[in-house]
Formats: sequence, structure tokens, C-alpha cells
Amino acid sequence: MLCVGLDPDPERLPPDLLQRSGLAEAIVAFNTSIIESTFDLVCAYKLNLAFYESLEERSWDVMRETLNAIPDDVLVIADGKRGDIGNSARFYADVVFETLGFDACTVSPYMGRDSVEPFLNFPGRGVFVLVRTSNPGARDFQELEIASVPLYEHVARSAMSWQGHRRGDLGFVVGATDTGPLRAIRSFAPDMPLLIPGIGAQGGDASAVMDAAGAGPVLVSSSRQVIFASAGADFAAAARRTADEMRARLQRHDVSR
Amino acid sequence: MLCVGLDPDPERLPPDLLQRSGLAEAIVAFNTSIIESTFDLVCAYKLNLAFYESLEERSWDVMRETLNAIPDDVLVIADGKRGDIGNSARFYADVVFETLGFDACTVSPYMGRDSVEPFLNFPGRGVFVLVRTSNPGARDFQELEIASVPLYEHVARSAMSWQGHRRGDLGFVVGATDTGPLRAIRSFAPDMPLLIPGIGAQGGDASAVMDAAGAGPVLVSSSRQVIFASAGADFAAAARRTADEMRARLQRHDVSR
Repeated sequence: MLCVGLDPDPERLPPDLLQRSGLAEAIVAFNTSIIESTFDLVCAYKLNLAFYESLEERSWDVMRETLNAIPDDVLVIADGKRGDIGNSARFYADVVFETLGFDACTVSPYMGRDSVEPFLNFPGRGVFVLVRTSNPGARDFQELEIASVPLYEHVARSAMSWQGHRRGDLGFVVGATDTGPLRAIRSFAPDMPLLIPGIGAQGGDASAVMDAAGAGPVLVSSSRQVIFASAGADFAAAARRTADEMRARLQRHDVSR
Repeated sequence: MLCVGLDPDPERLPPDLLQRSGLAEAIVAFNTSIIESTFDLVCAYKLNLAFYESLEERSWDVMRETLNAIPDDVLVIADGKRGDIGNSARFYADVVFETLGFDACTVSPYMGRDSVEPFLNFPGRGVFVLVRTSNPGARDFQELEIASVPLYEHVARSAMSWQGHRRGDLGFVVGATDTGPLRAIRSFAPDMPLLIPGIGAQGGDASAVMDAAGAGPVLVSSSRQVIFASAGADFAAAARRTADEMRARLQRHDVSR
């Protein structure tokens, strides 16, 4: 159930790695070490594209080498939160699914159905629509009530209606920092895969999350708390220890077992 | 008032250009020709990042060479519609404003204040928040009413409240395809710069848009209808003719003069 976010903020990389090579090489070495020491504990890795984009030209081979280091039976998720008119969304979807070969991605729903459907048109690929996010600003609009129903619920129900015959490919992003929305979403989407970020550094609690998420499929995601568990030469071993603890906590509270 | 969208869909580039070189070179040649033949007619060029991202490694020098071909007194807008938690949004903002040197960009508001503020932290750079977009899916959520006020109006008013001391840098994306929302937004944001896409290929009408947009600053954007006005060797001249006609129509209906 554990998903680890490979979000290599240059300011938090182990200084050792940065002294030995350029930034792009250091990130590949960092990601590879984290993957080698955690792949048997996780179901997925999530790459937030913001951190890679900042590497400019080098972002492409850094992403490719990172994806190559991940075993085939572990899901890879492109966390890009793209959302654009159909004509442009098609290009974004092609890049994440065809060019880079991600298994799944995140998309933003603000522009509605035709901004999400180009992603849903890839059979077998996962599309996690942002529903209720883990950040403080999630409350600004996602919680606004339309005839007593919060916007995030409208988004989730609408996305389910767009899915049509493509059942199996849709999922929701629902933050770990507030379990009320998580519980509400499970009440009308019991089988929907949920990508749940915000555990760890952002403050979400494993047992509360697992209780609220019920018996349906979940990917509980942590980035900073795992990958930056230590800034020393033992960073990979420290990441493994933290991931192992998180996984144990998630399993202990897994109501589906 | 005219903004031209440089959205180089490979399938619609003049075959002549594609035969002479690789795709990246063809796009640079195409963009440069369009710029050289239209720069005196426009106030801005807008690059939708989806089309560039699909060039992988080459996207970076194609964007840089395109930006280099644009005179300094013409605004350049990165149309990326990014929206992510603050930690990641900071990286996206750095790339568009610092690394690539765009004057302005578009951002998606779904994740709320902390997803937009990292962009507003760049003094003098424009941040166009998606408010009411031009695509069919705009109606799915943006028009939902919260206590009789549509979501897009909540978004616009909230963004104005976040702006704080950074007045002058905020703008809204409001589609040309439906003038009701445009008129509504102008009623409470008379001075706000509006980026208005959707004229031309998407069906927006210049005179109706200018009438609804009132006297405040506007950038009316067209992509496909201008840049793909001809698929022949005369593509640049055809783009100029179309841009010139659009500009004349906009000026004829400019109520601010």
C-alpha cells in the first residue's frame, strides 16, 4: 500500500552525492539508491514532475534512468497535475504514458471533462483525478458547498460518470491530512483506487487514514519523510527504516485484510 | 490587444518545413517565421507548454530559440496551467520565470492559495489564474453555484484577496466562447488584465468579446486560426493577414479608446 514520492529537492540531497558529480547525476544516484533499498516495501513510486522539470534538458534522462531502476512489478506514477483543453491534454497524456511509459498520472479537474478524457483514453493506464488535496489551500475551493454537497464530491462523482466503459483506470487523489473527506469519498466510491498523499512530513496519520479509507484499494504516499530520513551517507538505509515502519503501520491498520 | 498562441502541433506544420529538417528545427523555423511576420501586430505571444514538452530534450532549446526571436517589448506567456502544493509550485514558478524568462504564465486554482502564491512572489511577472475557461468542460465545475455565486466568481474574488501587496501582477483567464462570465467578471474586476483565449478556431467572436470585456486591459488570444491560416509555403504571410484582420476587428470594437 505504500507509495514513495521520489521528489529530489536539490537543497535536501545528501551533500556527499552533490560533491561527487553534477546535479543530474547526483539525483540519478540518489533515486537509484532509494529504489534499491525500498522497492520490496512499496507498491508504487511517484515522481512529482516539478522537481524534474527544473533540471531542464537533463530532466528527460534523469526521469528515464529513474524509471529504468524501478522493477516492472512496481507502479510508476507521474505526478504532474496537468489539466488543459483536449487538444493540449492529448500531448501531455502522450508524454507521460507513451514517451516516458508511466503506469499512471495525476490530473487536475478544474477544466472539466474534456481536459481529463484524453488521459482516460489510454487503456490500462491509471488516471488519478485531484479530488481533495492534502495542502492548506484545499479548503479554499474544494470544500465549497453546492446544494449541500462539497465541490470535491461533485468532482469525484462527475469523474466516475465520465469514465464510461473505461472502468478500472480511474482513481482519486485524496489527501491524508483530513480524514473527513476520505471517509465521505469511500461512502460512494468503495472500490475506487485512492492515491493518498500527505502522510509524514505534511502531517497525515497512518492509522487514521487507513481507518477512513476502508477496504478499497489505496496507495498511501510519502515523499520527504522517507527519502530525506537522513542527510548523511546512510540516507538509503534510513529511507528503508522509515518506509518499513510506515508500511508496518499501514498493514496493522489495514481493514481489508 | 492581440495575443498569438505559438502552439506548433506537428501534424499541422507546413509539410515543406518538415521535409527540410527534424521536427525541433522545423518548429523553430515555423515559430520564427510567424513571429517575424506578426510581431508588430501583437502585444503578446503565448506558448502552450504541452506542445513543447512533447519534444522531450529538444523542448528546451526550441523554447529558448523561440523566446529569443520575440522582440523585448512583446510579452511572452507560458501557458502551462500548473497547480501544485507550495513546495512543488516553487519549482514550476522558477522554471517559467527564472530559467526561461517568461513575463507571465497561467496557473490552475483548484488547489487553492498556496498553489498560486509561489507564482505571485515574482515581482513584475504576470500570473493569469484560470477562472472561466473556453472549453466545453468549463461548464462541468466552473459554473456550479455556491449560494447563487458561480465557482469561477469565487475563484476570481479569492485570487484578488490573495494578491495582497502584489497588485498589478494578477490576471484572469476568461474564455472568449461565452461572454456572460466575461461581463460578470468585469463588473467586479474592472481593471484586472484578462487573458481571453478561444477566439477563432474555438468559436469566440471578436466584437462580442470586446463589448463584454469593457474598458479594462485585455489580451485576446488566438492560436490555430492564425498560425495555421495556410499549410502552404505562404503560411507566414497568411498568418499575418489573419492576425491583421483580427487586430482590426478588436480595435474597431475597443470600448476603451
